[in-house]
Amino acid sequence: MPVLVMKFGGTSVASLDRIRRAAKRVGREVANGHDVIVIVSAMSGKTNELVGWVNEISPLFDAREYDAVVSSGENVTAGLMALTLQEMDIPARSWQGWQVPVLTTSAHSAARIMDIPTDNINTKFSEGMRVAVVAGFQGISPENRITTLGRGGSDTTAVAFAAAFDAERCDIYTDVDGVYTTDPRIESKARKLDRIAFEEMLELASLGAKVLQTRSVELAMRYKVKLRVLSSFEEYDENAGTLVCDEEEIMEQNVVAGVAYQRDEAKMTLISVADRPGIAAAIFGPLSEAGVNVDMIVQNISEEGRTDMTFSCPVEQVARAERAMQEAKTSGDINFHDIVADTDVAKVSVVGIGMRSHAGVAAKMFQVLSDEGINIKVITTSEIKISVLIDRKYMELAVQSLHDAFELEKVA
Amino acid sequence: MPVLVMKFGGTSVASLDRIRRAAKRVGREVANGHDVIVIVSAMSGKTNELVGWVNEISPLFDAREYDAVVSSGENVTAGLMALTLQEMDIPARSWQGWQVPVLTTSAHSAARIMDIPTDNINTKFSEGMRVAVVAGFQGISPENRITTLGRGGSDTTAVAFAAAFDAERCDIYTDVDGVYTTDPRIESKARKLDRIAFEEMLELASLGAKVLQTRSVELAMRYKVKLRVLSSFEEYDENAGTLVCDEEEIMEQNVVAGVAYQRDEAKMTLISVADRPGIAAAIFGPLSEAGVNVDMIVQNISEEGRTDMTFSCPVEQVARAERAMQEAKTSGDINFHDIVADTDVAKVSVVGIGMRSHAGVAAKMFQVLSDEGINIKVITTSEIKISVLIDRKYMELAVQSLHDAFELEKVA
Repeated sequence: MPVLVMKFGGTSVASLDRIRRAAKRVGREVANGHDVIVIVSAMSGKTNELVGWVNEISPLFDAREYDAVVSSGENVTAGLMALTLQEMDIPARSWQGWQVPVLTTSAHSAARIMDIPTDNINTKFSEGMRVAVVAGFQGISPENRITTLGRGGSDTTAVAFAAAFDAERCDIYTDVDGVYTTDPRIESKARKLDRIAFEEMLELASLGAKVLQTRSVELAMRYKVKLRVLSSFEEYDENAGTLVCDEEEIMEQNVVAGVAYQRDEAKMTLISVADRPGIAAAIFGPLSEAGVNVDMIVQNISEEGRTDMTFSCPVEQVARAERAMQEAKTSGDINFHDIVADTDVAKVSVVGIGMRSHAGVAAKMFQVLSDEGINIKVITTSEIKISVLIDRKYMELAVQSLHDAFELEKVA
Repeated sequence: MPVLVMKFGGTSVASLDRIRRAAKRVGREVANGHDVIVIVSAMSGKTNELVGWVNEISPLFDAREYDAVVSSGENVTAGLMALTLQEMDIPARSWQGWQVPVLTTSAHSAARIMDIPTDNINTKFSEGMRVAVVAGFQGISPENRITTLGRGGSDTTAVAFAAAFDAERCDIYTDVDGVYTTDPRIESKARKLDRIAFEEMLELASLGAKVLQTRSVELAMRYKVKLRVLSSFEEYDENAGTLVCDEEEIMEQNVVAGVAYQRDEAKMTLISVADRPGIAAAIFGPLSEAGVNVDMIVQNISEEGRTDMTFSCPVEQVARAERAMQEAKTSGDINFHDIVADTDVAKVSVVGIGMRSHAGVAAKMFQVLSDEGINIKVITTSEIKISVLIDRKYMELAVQSLHDAFELEKVA
């Protein structure tokens, strides 16, 4: 039978009633002749509670223990979903990451899936099981420890299963009905997109439009997984949600597809770094090993053999970044006078494949921000996006002004 | 280094503060030169929440999924405890049941531990780890599914580890400061026992004095594990708590050691069963397979080849018991007219090794109950205990009257 992957996020399984509603959608696909792999997140709020406890015990926690703790919420949902499906007379069972097994790297809290052997689950499908309910977000390392894939990792679990089982489609059920030109909570004129290109979705996801985890989109693009984002709270419809697809499949295209933001950024500056070949590697190697997700990087012009190095990362990783830098200083690998963290910044970006063939998007963006009196602290650009770091208090204003200026409420 | 097993129950790890307090006790034993295996329960209330969800989805749940769900609370505590110990600079890591591995039978929700290979944990001890924090209550079946050992199963986990690792002692930290002559919430004159014999503890545990899980005491007796029950809320003291030991180690002994009760019992009667050789096996075989814990059994005198068969079991297993009996009737294995459940009964028992050499305990017990106007529905006896099933509303009165009559507030 053709395999369908259906992923339900935390708000879609937040209560027994919602699990039942999700199970009904699964039941419809089973009735339509699919074997279904259901990927579940933890019930809404559960993972945050666990993360909060870990952070309270130790801001510089052992990521292996963090993973063992925070992965537990998905196990609960998987069991509850399997029980609910069984109660509807659908042959189902739950699978935890280590049971499948979902084999990952040892990079705890940000592990990558290496392989998903399909034998165990396929054997059960061949014995009559119709639904495999898999705990998302988790796997096991070569050392047999539990790993997690980073926040939102269940999306990646879903796409990886769709690729491994050659699924017909991967439906991501969430609490929004698709991908918007920007966050409707910030800009009421935000418009739902029927289709969006993988590349655009990739930038939007990585830039903080929290609909899909970045790596899930990368994986979908690489393995050509048909990926659909849709709401678990609305009536089902063949064309519901937003289809993430190749850009060739999109007829009309605005120059800018959307405006994304990332609220909780920090800007860190190493003051007066001894400048020498290999200094960037000496700084960002240890940060990467410490699990710090460095995003934007700016290096000042060097004066008298010293320079300032600025980078951005999520606010909650500042302590870890500082520690890694102090250690690298102590061990003599790098030398700097001081380390300064600005934890009150946010990132705002405009994204669009159309920018490749249209000049002037950057100039227009800077003008709009300037007109609003918003100071730009750091700029980075790529072929299809422009990002700026600004004071967090101006974030909403920036998003609204840019959405207006690029007329994103209108279809091209 | 000598190994010590320390088990912390749900109330002892109910919050991060309490986990810290427990970790300090562990730290003291590490400082005293022990390698420590810490067995943890789920944070107080967590398992009940999970059990509630499962029951709400399906009263006749798949026990394999039940186990997958309810075992998650212990995993959380194990990780949090390991993090807390690490924060105190004590080398520690968490172990889930499947990681040790704790090998059990496939009897889900009531699995028995078959073996605990010590290699993985001992390798880590030899590498400098000082504390192995193990999630209690859980293991894996030969089919690689998660199993649980029944409510209170973490006690059994603790004793099994103490036996497997040849531990110096097994300390069970709980919310009471030892074993009492009866529940102090029911009888304020209840007295703490300094020592109690394995056999007595076994009867008290199985009869509902909820200090230790029955099987943990059986295991401790078989493997001669020095078992101590003590409070995690009181100042530490070498002689704190109650030591569960061989009767030879107890100098003075009352005839009756304690009065136990079990509140939520049900009395089930199969009316007019066709009486024939093997009928008991035909009834209690299927009940056992369905996971029903049958306790007392009474068979009426047979009339015209038919009899009534009465048994007791926990109230929450009544639905399962009825289903197993109806199925056995449908399949023709047994034949009865009706099945009747009385879900308003409780069990009260007096227990004491001294009863072996003292006559008249039963007579005195029946007289005391009769004087209070309490009707006895079922009686069972053993060498060292007498149990009666009575209406639940008289339970407290029965416990108090018996405690008084046998003068349990006084030391022998």
